[in-house]
Amino acid sequence: MGTSESGSGGADPGTRPESAQAASDAAFALGAMQASRPAEGPAGIGQSIGTWLDAVQFDAQGLIPAIAQDAQQGDILMVAWMNRESLAETVATGRAVYWSRSRKRLWRKGEESGHTQTVLGLRIDCDADVILLEVEQTGGVACHTGRRRCFYRRLEDGQWRVTEAPLVDPETIYR
Amino acid sequence: MGTSESGSGGADPGTRPESAQAASDAAFALGAMQASRPAEGPAGIGQSIGTWLDAVQFDAQGLIPAIAQDAQQGDILMVAWMNRESLAETVATGRAVYWSRSRKRLWRKGEESGHTQTVLGLRIDCDADVILLEVEQTGGVACHTGRRRCFYRRLEDGQWRVTEAPLVDPETIYR
Repeated sequence: MGTSESGSGGADPGTRPESAQAASDAAFALGAMQASRPAEGPAGIGQSIGTWLDAVQFDAQGLIPAIAQDAQQGDILMVAWMNRESLAETVATGRAVYWSRSRKRLWRKGEESGHTQTVLGLRIDCDADVILLEVEQTGGVACHTGRRRCFYRRLEDGQWRVTEAPLVDPETIYR
Repeated sequence: MGTSESGSGGADPGTRPESAQAASDAAFALGAMQASRPAEGPAGIGQSIGTWLDAVQFDAQGLIPAIAQDAQQGDILMVAWMNRESLAETVATGRAVYWSRSRKRLWRKGEESGHTQTVLGLRIDCDADVILLEVEQTGGVACHTGRRRCFYRRLEDGQWRVTEAPLVDPETIYR
């Protein structure tokens, strides 16, 4: 399932791949859909996925915090939660998929706003209980308020001050 | 309590403040110990603290995830948890203080290792349920494994690969 995405090969140097192609290439780089060197004998694809996914420490609710960091500029765009399914789909597709705790369903980032996130890299911390995504943010807007990032308030003089304005009207994001 | 720390003034330009001075200056910049403009009439210091602290959305366990990002290089060093007390102390002292879920007590980062974190800035996200710390990492080692950061594993070819080596022997960190 989805292995055809890994057959697309590298992007043509000098041409900027379209968004869908970029996501496909990202999934290829993460490589979770292919077992280049099975750890224990000939492993099926499912087992290959399980190997890295089984190392992830989900909490009692089956969730793990996921930080989305802009791959170029390095600033933190947002933090959301993932369950096992959303993490697997993120790696398989190269597009960030979270778990919406409020809506209790998969949240394919950008499904309503169009502001998808192409995942260029994926890291995990020493306790394996936090995921770090290196992303390319489509449209340059990660926050539902229309701002580049969710961390637009800074503690100054004992108050949370808004330090950056919306880039787009949030009313126009969610149709 | 602690207001004397805000009387230290700015650092002398051109001289690098010592660590304790840096932390004190950081607390001064965050300004949570002083009510420059009380929201509702003449507020006591305690009330001033409460104003920004009351806006923070702690979870059902009274905790909030806190991301420590290197203020200069921008990479994510670690993620830990804070409760109300640790967040208040972090801002009051300019040193990162977390809540250890395993030890169930305040964890003043560096209390054993000496690898303290001076907090230069503090941000909160749109839902007010994640804290972002801009830190200066003493010793350049944030992870208990002796590495610069906790996110030293990257998903490559379907495996979590270690991409960076310890800078110090973890055995020498914890005496």
